[in-house]
Amino acid sequence: MPSNFKLIYYNLTGRGEPIRMLLTYGGVPFEDSRFEWDDWPKIKPTMPLGQVPVLEIDGKRYTQTIPLCRYLGRMLKLDGKDDMENLAIDSAVEILWDVLKVAYERNWETSDEKKKQLDAKLHTLSPLLLGKLEEDVKRNGGFIALNRITWADIVFLCSYEDMMNLVPEKDPFEGFANLRQLKNKLLENENLREYIKKRPVNKMMNRFSLISDL
Amino acid sequence: MPSNFKLIYYNLTGRGEPIRMLLTYGGVPFEDSRFEWDDWPKIKPTMPLGQVPVLEIDGKRYTQTIPLCRYLGRMLKLDGKDDMENLAIDSAVEILWDVLKVAYERNWETSDEKKKQLDAKLHTLSPLLLGKLEEDVKRNGGFIALNRITWADIVFLCSYEDMMNLVPEKDPFEGFANLRQLKNKLLENENLREYIKKRPVNKMMNRFSLISDL
Repeated sequence: MPSNFKLIYYNLTGRGEPIRMLLTYGGVPFEDSRFEWDDWPKIKPTMPLGQVPVLEIDGKRYTQTIPLCRYLGRMLKLDGKDDMENLAIDSAVEILWDVLKVAYERNWETSDEKKKQLDAKLHTLSPLLLGKLEEDVKRNGGFIALNRITWADIVFLCSYEDMMNLVPEKDPFEGFANLRQLKNKLLENENLREYIKKRPVNKMMNRFSLISDL
Repeated sequence: MPSNFKLIYYNLTGRGEPIRMLLTYGGVPFEDSRFEWDDWPKIKPTMPLGQVPVLEIDGKRYTQTIPLCRYLGRMLKLDGKDDMENLAIDSAVEILWDVLKVAYERNWETSDEKKKQLDAKLHTLSPLLLGKLEEDVKRNGGFIALNRITWADIVFLCSYEDMMNLVPEKDPFEGFANLRQLKNKLLENENLREYIKKRPVNKMMNRFSLISDL
């Protein structure tokens, strides 16, 4: 197992937080290198592909959140035991990411007309996809992909927090008791509790932070 | 290994083609169930999450293109031999998907103003991301992620064809000799050649089809 991890990302949750939370859950020490939004133009040219998050693993730089989460999931034995199990994990994560993507897109949209369209898309997609995951959690004895915790559950926890911030006018988890229970169960983990208490507050958590659920 | 595969998707390349091409490359027989665009409203309510592609594996239905490609990649031994190798494959695929997503978005966009923005985004992103892959292919002895063929190369081949159709005003692979060479090398595969000759022509290939490169 590599011994040196450094995460470079905005002082935001977003695409960096699942990596931070996975390392935290696994008890892997890492340097949490955060920068403020205004500093990005300075930093961008120094990053591979001009993108963050970047995870440095033993000094080598890697990009792309989900591939990195999958990698860390395997490293921490939070993956599946066979191909079918890994397919279940990957599919759950894609579903989470699909709904988050629309929520972000809507959040950033500046044209009123387009925002309305994205509103409509989100309000169809969110109950559909979260409803599917709710059923899965029910069937899987409380976890999102398999009958035990996997890296998809950690991605879910971060998605939960972001969705609560991105969809402020309505609780997107209303009526999804199993997803809420999963969130609460994950928040029993001591490593995550410590991290959530200590992490810097940032402007993506202006409406909701998991700290209120500890 | 499961024995029964059926792919349900539009009569288009898009998100279905990498699954078709992987099964084809691996010599795995599958039912290629295609429907026309106009029939989608009838079919949508019968699909899990109202989405396609759907791959039926021994009668069970699965969605999500990339998780399915990863699954098939493992099944066909076109995956990495360890976590780091799989991270390289996953990252390459994410990069391909990132550039394709913008190309699709731009293609579908109806507002002139927004289309202009997406134009600008695509024309920055495409050379940057494809340029990164070009370097990777050069370093990897002709393949996109590792020093041998992986499922990322098959995803690349499909992305190549779609990009050629989605960015008609300029060849997006101009100047990327290694990517073009990789495409040509993949097209030497007999299974792929047979498939490409026989597959139905569809309206996504109105500008370019791999058949012209055989």
